[in-house]
Amino acid sequence: MDQLFTYERLSSFTKNIFLKIGCSTHDANIATETLLSADLRGVDSHGVARLSGYVRLWEAQRVNATATIKIIHETPSTAVVDGDAGLGLVVAPFAMQVAINKAKNVGTGWVSVQNSNHYGIAGYHAMMALPHDMIGISMTNASALVAPTFSRDKMLGTNPIAVAIPAGSEQPFVADFATTTAANGKLEILQRKNKPVPAGWVQTKEGGGSLNAHELKDGGALLPLGGNREGSSHKGYMLGSIVDIFSGVLSGANYGPWVPPFPAYIPMPPNMPGKGIGHFFGAMRIDAFRPAEDFKKDMDQWIHAFKNAVPVNENEKVIIPGEPEFAMQKERMVKGIPISITIVNDLNELGTRFSVVL
Amino acid sequence: MDQLFTYERLSSFTKNIFLKIGCSTHDANIATETLLSADLRGVDSHGVARLSGYVRLWEAQRVNATATIKIIHETPSTAVVDGDAGLGLVVAPFAMQVAINKAKNVGTGWVSVQNSNHYGIAGYHAMMALPHDMIGISMTNASALVAPTFSRDKMLGTNPIAVAIPAGSEQPFVADFATTTAANGKLEILQRKNKPVPAGWVQTKEGGGSLNAHELKDGGALLPLGGNREGSSHKGYMLGSIVDIFSGVLSGANYGPWVPPFPAYIPMPPNMPGKGIGHFFGAMRIDAFRPAEDFKKDMDQWIHAFKNAVPVNENEKVIIPGEPEFAMQKERMVKGIPISITIVNDLNELGTRFSVVL
Repeated sequence: MDQLFTYERLSSFTKNIFLKIGCSTHDANIATETLLSADLRGVDSHGVARLSGYVRLWEAQRVNATATIKIIHETPSTAVVDGDAGLGLVVAPFAMQVAINKAKNVGTGWVSVQNSNHYGIAGYHAMMALPHDMIGISMTNASALVAPTFSRDKMLGTNPIAVAIPAGSEQPFVADFATTTAANGKLEILQRKNKPVPAGWVQTKEGGGSLNAHELKDGGALLPLGGNREGSSHKGYMLGSIVDIFSGVLSGANYGPWVPPFPAYIPMPPNMPGKGIGHFFGAMRIDAFRPAEDFKKDMDQWIHAFKNAVPVNENEKVIIPGEPEFAMQKERMVKGIPISITIVNDLNELGTRFSVVL
Repeated sequence: MDQLFTYERLSSFTKNIFLKIGCSTHDANIATETLLSADLRGVDSHGVARLSGYVRLWEAQRVNATATIKIIHETPSTAVVDGDAGLGLVVAPFAMQVAINKAKNVGTGWVSVQNSNHYGIAGYHAMMALPHDMIGISMTNASALVAPTFSRDKMLGTNPIAVAIPAGSEQPFVADFATTTAANGKLEILQRKNKPVPAGWVQTKEGGGSLNAHELKDGGALLPLGGNREGSSHKGYMLGSIVDIFSGVLSGANYGPWVPPFPAYIPMPPNMPGKGIGHFFGAMRIDAFRPAEDFKKDMDQWIHAFKNAVPVNENEKVIIPGEPEFAMQKERMVKGIPISITIVNDLNELGTRFSVVL
């Protein structure tokens, strides 16, 4: 069912597609690296599988391939970036770099982004801080698929949060998660297998419980982390709301039910209060708090302690956030990246249209 | 079962107890306001019910009533505060004020705190930012009661996060939640009623499922938000870890299984790597991003949209984070604060010992 591709092959193809839609070489390189970081890390739903989706957004004139991204307001530790309707894959690294530069100057940098589009995986941008001995934070809002506690209406996106924290001899701590019980990608896996989803992942359009992996197509909604009231879904709702406000309201982007959808065939919401999709980034220099070497030594001790916690089952050890993704990246750089035949066909079609060989 | 007290009566009593253990008038006032904000907001587990617990920590020489709280490292947007083993109820507002002052100067302020103790409710400190048209963030680590996904061992505290966001004509958005499925306070309510807890709140000491509200006394653990692997408890584990690292590792406080316990009779963990308990605070000036009036207008629209989402049941509307607590505070300032007889007896004992009339 899957075909193996080297990173280089996927990267060359993806870069050429971005060039064909009009991106500069600089932007095509960045967009490719950002997008494919998902495939390398095993987040298959957010990688090259979405390439044709980005192209459709460009065709629908919702993505500007030659965007002029700029800072429209700033203080020593903050900025608002206008993405000029560019690819989020390019806008987000620009904004994260602004945060890093500000952290170099005054200890931390915080950047809210308006007028952007989907930015790939949250973790990529947060991890940009790591080589600078900084903690990186990344979040984004997204079109509404999630019903808050007590709501039938879908009001929030899956609104992910990523936090990347340097360690010493250990690999960095990298948390990257949707603020729903399950990300859309996990739902899609069960859809393809025609299997039910666990309780607490989705609800029907009337707000009732459901184990149907196809519930969203019938008007249902994803549920916030916690699943239901007894499971404290109000906490997932609060987390998703914080991401929405930091990304959308603080920047002047759209928020809540007004965030533009990723699929280009879905019409834009009426009466949008802001511009495009919003993101939020943070960078904190470790030595703005304490010497980086001391911090990293303690992070190593933190990681050792958690890895050595007594497991419930001997064969399932406690996992450090980011650990499986680093292992996956190592493996896929050597063995190649498996792409499902459906996606390969989709990429081949794209290649034919733009005269790019996969 | 409950006795009603005016805020003034509880406040006067609490302040006098803090004075008796040696706090300055300034510190006693702050500690009282911080502690009782929990009772006003309906978080009864974290208010005056804990007063005798703080006194026992002072008796055990784990709390320094005459602490000299100071900044030990800083940049324009960051600081590390040493709490000198003082009451967290006093150390935390000091640190949050440092964050606010830095935000006035450079847009945002971020303060990590070492050598502190329990700081009351997270939300109080975050809300200090609101009158300044700032977003406030507050988090703290706590002694280990929570088992990460796949772990039998308790490695994290209930590690709460609070985020307070100003609005215009609407009340502010105030999220304040433990990163576990259920806070300890909710467990205690079911313990008193001798009722089972919902699935996903606790596990047995072997890591098995449990509905026993008394499971912690038998060596069991609280579970991270999400409850179990299918419910994405790894996300709650990641959130609790981020709070622990920002509060404990970034400041040089203790972290993970080494965070000192609140009950004074529980021995301190061996080989502690840091000093006391850690907190983390942030303040972001709204107009460091966009004009505060524009932001607040959008926050009002955000709040209206969510309040008007179609509910699953007509009589259960979607709740804005902080809404029930503001209503509770309004009610209790007028009608008084109900205190359970057990706590009244405990306070009377304390009063007798220190010659303070309740």
